[in-house]
Amino acid sequence: MTPRQNRTRAERGIPEATVARLPVYLRALHTLQDRGVATVSSEELASAAGVNSAKLRKDLSHLGSYGTRGVGYEVEYLVYQISRELGLTQDWVVAIIGVGNLGRALAGYGGFASRGFRVAGLLDADEAIVGQQISGMTVEHIDRLEDVIAERGVSIAVIATPAGAAQKVCDRVVASGVTSVLNFAPVVLAVPDGVDVRKVDLSIELQILAFHEQRKAGGPGEHPLAGDGPPGTAQYVEAVQA
Amino acid sequence: MTPRQNRTRAERGIPEATVARLPVYLRALHTLQDRGVATVSSEELASAAGVNSAKLRKDLSHLGSYGTRGVGYEVEYLVYQISRELGLTQDWVVAIIGVGNLGRALAGYGGFASRGFRVAGLLDADEAIVGQQISGMTVEHIDRLEDVIAERGVSIAVIATPAGAAQKVCDRVVASGVTSVLNFAPVVLAVPDGVDVRKVDLSIELQILAFHEQRKAGGPGEHPLAGDGPPGTAQYVEAVQA
Repeated sequence: MTPRQNRTRAERGIPEATVARLPVYLRALHTLQDRGVATVSSEELASAAGVNSAKLRKDLSHLGSYGTRGVGYEVEYLVYQISRELGLTQDWVVAIIGVGNLGRALAGYGGFASRGFRVAGLLDADEAIVGQQISGMTVEHIDRLEDVIAERGVSIAVIATPAGAAQKVCDRVVASGVTSVLNFAPVVLAVPDGVDVRKVDLSIELQILAFHEQRKAGGPGEHPLAGDGPPGTAQYVEAVQA
Repeated sequence: MTPRQNRTRAERGIPEATVARLPVYLRALHTLQDRGVATVSSEELASAAGVNSAKLRKDLSHLGSYGTRGVGYEVEYLVYQISRELGLTQDWVVAIIGVGNLGRALAGYGGFASRGFRVAGLLDADEAIVGQQISGMTVEHIDRLEDVIAERGVSIAVIATPAGAAQKVCDRVVASGVTSVLNFAPVVLAVPDGVDVRKVDLSIELQILAFHEQRKAGGPGEHPLAGDGPPGTAQYVEAVQA
């Protein structure tokens, strides 16, 4: 979380952790919609999203959404409320920089358009890729980056370049006024205050699966390392809120 | 969350929501390692992971990890503890089914190998793709799916096929004994009890960026929909735990 995000949290009253869960609720709600479900209890929705229902209700209360006793939440309306809160009821113009396998996959990813993200530019430094047609768009040369951002009103830059090129690309998009960067490159990007960077780790869901696979196989134990502190350090229990 | 995961949670004492946050902590810790940071306070780590520090401490206490007063957590040791809890200190054999742009990107994704995920098979139904060399592996025909799973001990199947092919592929991997499926296809997969499916939505991080972009632009208000309930339904506030 950047300092700016901390300020935002204080200003707006919606905890950052709640913001991070709203897309997860939205994903669960879209799944329910796909199944034709019209209303959902907080317990069902919480279970689908992998949180406890008290937390879900509290999160949704930040949006002014409280459900109906004995009925739960109306799926379609809650989708609208969360989408509006997240800013998904308007279009966001996105440029994808780096058109390798991942950039191509992202350019054709249906989940962007359906969530209000419009890919308006594909840019690459490789002359062999520039000019190619990908998902109905022509790949442009990275030299045009600043022009594309200005002309098309790009507000979010998706960086899918190799690690070595990512920081330079990031510096250029930030200099062009873009303040939101989604980084798929395996590198930590340095940005000035006021710029939000989210880094995608495609292995996160795999790690959660691995946890369950390990559990199915019977190990490790419940508190495998309890009392097994770092060498030479004393253990203590900090105050923990319930 | 599947019924099985609920049982796991009850059996092992680590809440599912904590499990889902462990990879996020791990990502933040790896970032700190990349920056050469040796110890981190719970506040710093919580901020980097986007949760509050009390929750972080509680989550880590499930692992028997409590930090050291005035020092915090030793980054390298905490990486080890979380990795062990998640089952990342052993290798997991992964097969990627569907070798389009996304499958290719995943096959070459460095973040898998570094987290203990070894891609041991690439399979596709397209004769034009079968036989191609991708990231040092030869793409095999989907007809070999059951053999590849059995011969190489595949425990996690990554489905990156088009939506229309995903359920059939899923049925086959489940029939072959695989109980963990990572689904990138834009479709909800039906699986029997005992099989864990995680669905990846590449737009989730974009949605979090959109929230902040909207805030920077000044809207919507803090509780845009408070008192604006679904038509024809009475509002009430369910008991909300702090």
